[in-house]
Amino acid sequence: MIKIIVAGPRGKMGSEALRLIEKTDHFELVGAIDRKYNGRKVKEITGLPPFDAPIYTSAEQALHELEPDVLIDLTTPDAGYYHTRLALENNVSPVVGTTGFSQEQLNMLGHLAEEKEIGAVIAPNFAVGAVLMMQFARWAARYFPDVEIIEKHHDQKLDAPSGTAVKTAELIQEVRSEKQQGHPDEKEIVKGSRGANIHGMHIHSVRLPGLIAHQEVIFGGTGQTLTIRHDSYHRESFMTGVKLAVEQVRKLNGLVYGLENLLE
Amino acid sequence: MIKIIVAGPRGKMGSEALRLIEKTDHFELVGAIDRKYNGRKVKEITGLPPFDAPIYTSAEQALHELEPDVLIDLTTPDAGYYHTRLALENNVSPVVGTTGFSQEQLNMLGHLAEEKEIGAVIAPNFAVGAVLMMQFARWAARYFPDVEIIEKHHDQKLDAPSGTAVKTAELIQEVRSEKQQGHPDEKEIVKGSRGANIHGMHIHSVRLPGLIAHQEVIFGGTGQTLTIRHDSYHRESFMTGVKLAVEQVRKLNGLVYGLENLLE
Amino acid sequence: MIKIIVAGPRGKMGSEALRLIEKTDHFELVGAIDRKYNGRKVKEITGLPPFDAPIYTSAEQALHELEPDVLIDLTTPDAGYYHTRLALENNVSPVVGTTGFSQEQLNMLGHLAEEKEIGAVIAPNFAVGAVLMMQFARWAARYFPDVEIIEKHHDQKLDAPSGTAVKTAELIQEVRSEKQQGHPDEKEIVKGSRGANIHGMHIHSVRLPGLIAHQEVIFGGTGQTLTIRHDSYHRESFMTGVKLAVEQVRKLNGLVYGLENLLE
Amino acid sequence: MIKIIVAGPRGKMGSEALRLIEKTDHFELVGAIDRKYNGRKVKEITGLPPFDAPIYTSAEQALHELEPDVLIDLTTPDAGYYHTRLALENNVSPVVGTTGFSQEQLNMLGHLAEEKEIGAVIAPNFAVGAVLMMQFARWAARYFPDVEIIEKHHDQKLDAPSGTAVKTAELIQEVRSEKQQGHPDEKEIVKGSRGANIHGMHIHSVRLPGLIAHQEVIFGGTGQTLTIRHDSYHRESFMTGVKLAVEQVRKLNGLVYGLENLLE
Repeated sequence: MIKIIVAGPRGKMGSEALRLIEKTDHFELVGAIDRKYNGRKVKEITGLPPFDAPIYTSAEQALHELEPDVLIDLTTPDAGYYHTRLALENNVSPVVGTTGFSQEQLNMLGHLAEEKEIGAVIAPNFAVGAVLMMQFARWAARYFPDVEIIEKHHDQKLDAPSGTAVKTAELIQEVRSEKQQGHPDEKEIVKGSRGANIHGMHIHSVRLPGLIAHQEVIFGGTGQTLTIRHDSYHRESFMTGVKLAVEQVRKLNGLVYGLENLLE
Repeated sequence: MIKIIVAGPRGKMGSEALRLIEKTDHFELVGAIDRKYNGRKVKEITGLPPFDAPIYTSAEQALHELEPDVLIDLTTPDAGYYHTRLALENNVSPVVGTTGFSQEQLNMLGHLAEEKEIGAVIAPNFAVGAVLMMQFARWAARYFPDVEIIEKHHDQKLDAPSGTAVKTAELIQEVRSEKQQGHPDEKEIVKGSRGANIHGMHIHSVRLPGLIAHQEVIFGGTGQTLTIRHDSYHRESFMTGVKLAVEQVRKLNGLVYGLENLLE
Repeated sequence: MIKIIVAGPRGKMGSEALRLIEKTDHFELVGAIDRKYNGRKVKEITGLPPFDAPIYTSAEQALHELEPDVLIDLTTPDAGYYHTRLALENNVSPVVGTTGFSQEQLNMLGHLAEEKEIGAVIAPNFAVGAVLMMQFARWAARYFPDVEIIEKHHDQKLDAPSGTAVKTAELIQEVRSEKQQGHPDEKEIVKGSRGANIHGMHIHSVRLPGLIAHQEVIFGGTGQTLTIRHDSYHRESFMTGVKLAVEQVRKLNGLVYGLENLLE
Repeated sequence: MIKIIVAGPRGKMGSEALRLIEKTDHFELVGAIDRKYNGRKVKEITGLPPFDAPIYTSAEQALHELEPDVLIDLTTPDAGYYHTRLALENNVSPVVGTTGFSQEQLNMLGHLAEEKEIGAVIAPNFAVGAVLMMQFARWAARYFPDVEIIEKHHDQKLDAPSGTAVKTAELIQEVRSEKQQGHPDEKEIVKGSRGANIHGMHIHSVRLPGLIAHQEVIFGGTGQTLTIRHDSYHRESFMTGVKLAVEQVRKLNGLVYGLENLLE
C-alpha cells in the first residue's frame, strides 16, 4: 500500500489523480493540500470522490502529520516548486507534473534528492502513450530520415503546431542526419500546403470540432511507410504515467526528469 | 462481347487498358491506333500483351475496317479530340481519358453525339474510388461544414496540393455555407502549420518516399468525425472506371462528362 | 424559434438534448415530461442545465398547456409510443429516438401523422456521421463488391459484432451481387482470424480500453481501396441528428423512419 | 566502395538487390552466382540491370576470382547454406535472407564466423519498418497489456493470420503479463467476430483486392490508444534492410541472426 498526498485536488489533473487512487488497490489517499478548505474532508467538496482524507492548507503540516510515501503535485510551477522541495526535505518522494520549472530549480531539486538519497519524478507529460510515441519516433528516425508529423486537435486549440509535435520534431532532429525533405523542386501552388518546416521536417496541424488530441508520425522509406500514432481521448490518459511514476519513484535514487527515463 | 479499339496502346494508361481487356471475358480487342508500327500486331511490340489484333496509324482506316463498338482513347488532347470526333462520325462510342479538352470542344462533341444518337464518355479521372470519395465528400459537407483534407504522395511529386485535393475542395464549396474554419484567434507559431486555405478549408500535403497516392477528407462535428479515404496503390486503379464506362457507354444517348455522372 | 418539450430529461440522451437546446439559438425549451418531479423546474434537478421550464408528469397536460412545436422523446419504447401518439393527436411533431417500436406501431403512427397532416421523425440512430457512413457504404458497394468491416469499441461492450456493423452489412447486401469474399482456398491457421462472415462479408470486432465507438468500412478494388470511417467520441454525437430532425420535422408531411431519409 | 557478389540474381529478391546496388553509390557489383549462364555478363540477361559484372555457376570460383567484401544470398535454404559456408571459409561476409536454416546449421555458421573473426548477417525479414514495428510493439506491451493486431493483405493470400502477425504476438507475449483480453462476459453473436485468440490477444485478418501488405498493432490504455502501423507497398521494401546489413556486416564479429539485432 502506497500512502499518497495530492496537492491541487480540485484541478482538472488533481481530480483525475484522486480517481486514479480510488480505483487502484495498492494506492491510499492520506490527505490533500489545497489553498482552501483546511480541516474539511475531501468527500465534502462537490465533485470529488468520497474520500475521508483531510485537507490541509499548510503543506508542512500535512507532510509532518500524515507521513505519506509519495506527494503527487499537480498545481502551478510556483506552488509546485515549494511543495516539491518541502517533500524532499521531509523524505517524501515527489511525483510532479509541470513544464514550468527553470533549469536552476531542477538542478537544486536534483541535488536535494541525491543528498537525501530518495527518488523524485518530474515530468512535463505523463501520457505514457504519447511519450512512447516520441521515443519510437526518435528510434525510427535513425533508419528512416524522411518523416512528417500530422497532429489533430479540437478547433478550440489556439496554437499550431502543438507542443508535442514540436517536441517530437526536436527529438528526431537529435538523431537524424540534416535533411531537407521533399523534392528539391517542389512547389506550393497554394501557400502553406506543405505545412510547417522544422529542421527540414514538415508538420501539419488539423483543427476540427469533435477531435480531441491525436498525432501521427509517418516515416517513409523505399516501398514502405511506418506510422506511429497516439490518440488521447480523455485527460485521464495522463494518469497512466502518474500511476507508473508513483509505483517507481521510491525505487529511484535522485531526480528523474521526463517520463521517458522511466520507460526503458 | 464488346469489340474495342485502343488508341495509344504503348502509353502507361493505354497498356493498362490492354491488360484490362485481356482479363475481361466480355471485352475483345479488335485493333489499336498508334503513331508507329502500321500493320504490325500488338503482340509484336515489346511489353504489350499477346494480342493478334492489328495496329493502324490511320484512325479512319481502323474505324472503317474493324467496325468496333467502342474506342478507348488514352492519348493526348489533340490526338484525342481528333479520334473522338472521328469515332462519333463513324457511330463508334468513345471512352476518353483526358483533362485537356476546351469547353468549346466538349460542346462540339456533345452536339455530335446527340445528332448521331450514340453514347460517349469523357472523364478527367477514371479511378472509381477517387470519384466516389469526392461525391461522398460533397454529400457529407451539407451536414458537416467543418472539413480538412490530407493528401499524401511520393516525394517525386512537384506540385502541392494535388489536383484531386483542390477539386475536392471545390466540390465541397458548391454545397457548404461559407465558413472560415478553426478558432477565430488561432495562431500559427510556425508558418504553414495550418496548411493551405481554400475557401476557408485547410489542405495538407504530405510527401514521403514509399507513398503512392492517398487522400483523406475528414469531417468534424459534435462528438464525432467522419473520414473518407482513398488509397491508390497502382495506376491500374484507373481501369475500374474505364471498364465501367465501356460497359455503360452504349446504353447512353449523348455525351457524359465526368465519371461521377455514371455513378448515380 | 422552435418551442420544444423533452420527454426523459434525466436520461443520458435526454440530458444531452437539453444541452443541445441550451446552445442552439433558435431552439427553446418550454417544458419537460418526467415520471417524477411534477411542478418543479428543470434547473432544480441536480445535473441538468439551468432552464426555468416546468416539469410535468402528465404528458397530456404538458402538451395542452405548453403548446410546443416539437416533442423530443428519448424514453423507453412503451412510454415513447404513448407520447408519440399523444403528440400527433395534439398536432405536435414528434422526434423520437428508439429501436423498440413494432412494425404495427410504426404503421399506426404513420397513418395518424398522415391523417393529421403533420411531420414525425422516428430513428434508431441519430448520429449523422454513422448514418452517412452506412449510406456511403451502400453506394460504394455497387462498384466495389469486396468489402470488410472493422468496428472498434471499449472493452466493456459485451456483444460482437456491434449493431451498426451488422446493419451496415445488411445495407450493403441489399445492393451488391452475392459474393463469398477472399480466396476460395483461404485457410484459417488460427480459428477466427478471418472474422465473422455475414453474407460473405467479413466483420472484425476490436475491444480495447481507451476506445470509444469507431467503425471503418473498407472496399477493395483493382489497385485501390476506399475507406469510410466514423469515430464517435461522445454520445453527444447523436445530437447532430436530433438537431437536424427538429429543424426538418415541421416541413414534413407524415412519418419519416430512419435518419437516412432526411439525408438525401 | 563495398564489393558485392549476388547469388540468385534472377529471383524476385535477387533482382531487387541488383537494383539496390545500381542506385547506391558506395556499392559495387563485382559478380553474380547463378545456376545458369556461366561466363555471360549480367546485362545480357533479359530484365536485369546493365551491369558488366560476370556470372559464375561455381560459387567457389566466383569467391576466389572476384575477392568480394560481401556475398548477398537470396536463393534457397540449401544453396544458401552452401554459399554462406563457402563465403565464411573464404573470409567474405555473407548477408543472407532466408527462414529456412535449421538451428544446427545456424550454430555451425556461427562457430565458423567466430573462428574466422568475420561478420555475418542472416535474417528472415529484411523490411526495416516491419522489424521496427515488432520491436516497438514489444516495448509498448510492457506498459499497455491490452493489444489487438489487424493485418491486411491482398485476397490472393491463402493463410490467415500472416506470419508477421503471429510473430508480433509472440514477441509481445515474451514481455507482457498473462492476460485474457476483452470483457469476461463478452459474447460473439456471430462466430469469429472477435478474431483469432493467441495467448489472449486478438488478431484480425483482412483480405481485399487492391491491398498489398499492411499491419497495425493497437494498444489500448486509460483514455488513449497507441498504434504502430507498417504499410509495405512493394517488395523492394526489403532492400532497406539488405542495404543496412551490407553496410554493417564487416564491422561485426560473428553471426547476427535477425535484423532487429542490428537496429539497436
